Amino acid sequence: MMNDFVFQNRTKIYFGKDQLTHLGEEAAAFGKKVLLVYGGGSIKRIGLYDKVVDVLTKAGLTVSELGGVEPNPRHTTVNKGVKICREEGIDVILAVGGGSTIDASKVMAATVAAPTDDCWDLVIKKVESPRALPLMTVLTIAATGSEMNAGAVISNVDTKDKLPYFSPAVQPAVSFLDPTNTFSVPAYQTASGSVDIMAHVFDMVYFSRQPRMDMLYRVQDEVLKTIVTFAPIALKEPDNYEARANLMWASTWALNGFLAGGVSQMTSCHRMEHELSAVYDITHGHGLAILIPRWLKYVMNDDNAWQIKRLGTNVFGIDASLSDREGAEKAIEALSDFFFKTLGLDSRLSDLGIDDKHFRDMAENACKQLGGTLHGFIDLTPDDIVKIYEMCL
Amino acid sequence: MMNDFVFQNRTKIYFGKDQLTHLGEEAAAFGKKVLLVYGGGSIKRIGLYDKVVDVLTKAGLTVSELGGVEPNPRHTTVNKGVKICREEGIDVILAVGGGSTIDASKVMAATVAAPTDDCWDLVIKKVESPRALPLMTVLTIAATGSEMNAGAVISNVDTKDKLPYFSPAVQPAVSFLDPTNTFSVPAYQTASGSVDIMAHVFDMVYFSRQPRMDMLYRVQDEVLKTIVTFAPIALKEPDNYEARANLMWASTWALNGFLAGGVSQMTSCHRMEHELSAVYDITHGHGLAILIPRWLKYVMNDDNAWQIKRLGTNVFGIDASLSDREGAEKAIEALSDFFFKTLGLDSRLSDLGIDDKHFRDMAENACKQLGGTLHGFIDLTPDDIVKIYEMCL
Repeated sequence: MMNDFVFQNRTKIYFGKDQLTHLGEEAAAFGKKVLLVYGGGSIKRIGLYDKVVDVLTKAGLTVSELGGVEPNPRHTTVNKGVKICREEGIDVILAVGGGSTIDASKVMAATVAAPTDDCWDLVIKKVESPRALPLMTVLTIAATGSEMNAGAVISNVDTKDKLPYFSPAVQPAVSFLDPTNTFSVPAYQTASGSVDIMAHVFDMVYFSRQPRMDMLYRVQDEVLKTIVTFAPIALKEPDNYEARANLMWASTWALNGFLAGGVSQMTSCHRMEHELSAVYDITHGHGLAILIPRWLKYVMNDDNAWQIKRLGTNVFGIDASLSDREGAEKAIEALSDFFFKTLGLDSRLSDLGIDDKHFRDMAENACKQLGGTLHGFIDLTPDDIVKIYEMCL
Repeated sequence: MMNDFVFQNRTKIYFGKDQLTHLGEEAAAFGKKVLLVYGGGSIKRIGLYDKVVDVLTKAGLTVSELGGVEPNPRHTTVNKGVKICREEGIDVILAVGGGSTIDASKVMAATVAAPTDDCWDLVIKKVESPRALPLMTVLTIAATGSEMNAGAVISNVDTKDKLPYFSPAVQPAVSFLDPTNTFSVPAYQTASGSVDIMAHVFDMVYFSRQPRMDMLYRVQDEVLKTIVTFAPIALKEPDNYEARANLMWASTWALNGFLAGGVSQMTSCHRMEHELSAVYDITHGHGLAILIPRWLKYVMNDDNAWQIKRLGTNVFGIDASLSDREGAEKAIEALSDFFFKTLGLDSRLSDLGIDDKHFRDMAENACKQLGGTLHGFIDLTPDDIVKIYEMCL
């Protein structure tokens, strides 16, 4: 019987091309001083930075800023933001960017409300923070779903750790999702983001041993089909509003709890990929694309083959009359073709200059905080994970 | 290009069979005095009344009550509740029942916070109420979706009006969705509720001239397929948890904003049906079942036939190679078969003892508050509505 669950998601979403006008009134509801957090400067190139600052100042807000948040955001950068928030008495944080900028802002918001200067204390649970500064976001890439959930992932380059942080207090209060802000996302990031979206569905709910609600299983198929349909269009026509809008809302749905329905599990592929990104600083979605087909091959067995086959039949149109095993193999093939041919991502870790040098350490590390085993579709020990990494070479 | 939209839904959902234990702590967060609102007494027969009172009193709350809310809830009953709330200083209203009980409680909650004793003043917008008492619900039938939205429908038997009320303030704070509480719902109400769920999808988003997001259109198909799959199972096996759970979550999704994505329209069939229920006090979902296939036949044209055909191909498995018109006709046939054969509902208004005596008045009334025309999939004048009613005889 399916699991009981609690569902609540308070984030207010402004979706569409003419919504940024509401940013001023929403921010002003939290106070006078806003910290604008962003990444490498693409928001300046596309004119979004100017628009945001203009709307905020017209609404009477004082804008401080922290730029330069890294693609795998670092705890040291978060700590810089914490310092600014405290020194300037910031009332609300506005993250303008993708998952990295939003994640950094989340941990920043929680740390400001905690008795420490170092956000890493929260990440490793040395310090708890039940509160946080209010957070708003303006999303610029469809990928992580961070714009409508309470999770974040932060990297510590000193210890080479990349760890999740979760607190209901850091759920964004308001997020602005304008598909036109993703028109300029380069092909590589569009492809990687699309993989990340699919991986959230796979890792969180689709590939699970837990009983699930049929309706949500069907809806998961449709979210996956949305990516398979529109990611190739966005690659060919970066300014295609329909494609960008579908990818954007799908990315939010993939990780905002709508699809969960009581299925809750460790996210095997994500944990394995976080180790890759922590050690080699590669793009998360690309690492996932390389891992997922090998992981599926490795974990497939007689009990779960029907679920992998289901991906093939319901999402990639594979012949339903095949046996579970045959169908599952065809599904993995179709998924690989989608990642490596259609989306054009390199298919091997060696293509990214990664060898087996750190595989053992990474595998141990992925399991370290979870009692030695990654629980999921099937449980994985460090030995299993090393073998999966090796399949990716 | 698709419409911009704002999405937010704050309701906290406890879904599953062992969640009622949390009712006490959730209610206590709002105060000490709770008004328990319910309908005809089925909650006593299934033991739910005792369980609820037990949990509330153990959590230290004082329980007042108002039973006897009608299937088409009356403004006079709501006013009784308003009086109790004021006299006893109620802190939170707990609706235990279906859409009628929840709708009555919503308008009650808003009226208590308004400068009037008569809730009808709010319904006809003579008085505004931006606030409301907090509202919680324990749902006992999958149908209206009222457990997770801000709308209600109230009847005035004096004026024979059945009108909608909408206010963000009346959105339930917490709703308990336990599929086992619907095991005892009789076949007729299970069937009618299932039609209501499908009608919400049809009326709100599926049959619309507005541009829509492909992902959500696909998800709508799946919610409809969920009903087509599980309503017959629930009829045959009333205690089937999986069937009841899928119907329950589908009913919530059908009207909680998840599926909308910027499509917003008058709900033609619902407005036409509300007139039937107002005059003849029939079951809402049954009235909808009789109306919808005739309405589809009446509004079908060369521009929209593909949308009706889509229902046939994507939900009822009709041959995709048919022409739009042929496919649409087959779809209407399949839908009629589902309502009248599979669900076993009588197919004609005359089966319910309704003749054409009031058709003109009802048609005029349905359009009265909307400038003379029901806007929707196609716009309907009173003449159109009379013709559709006549097709239902």
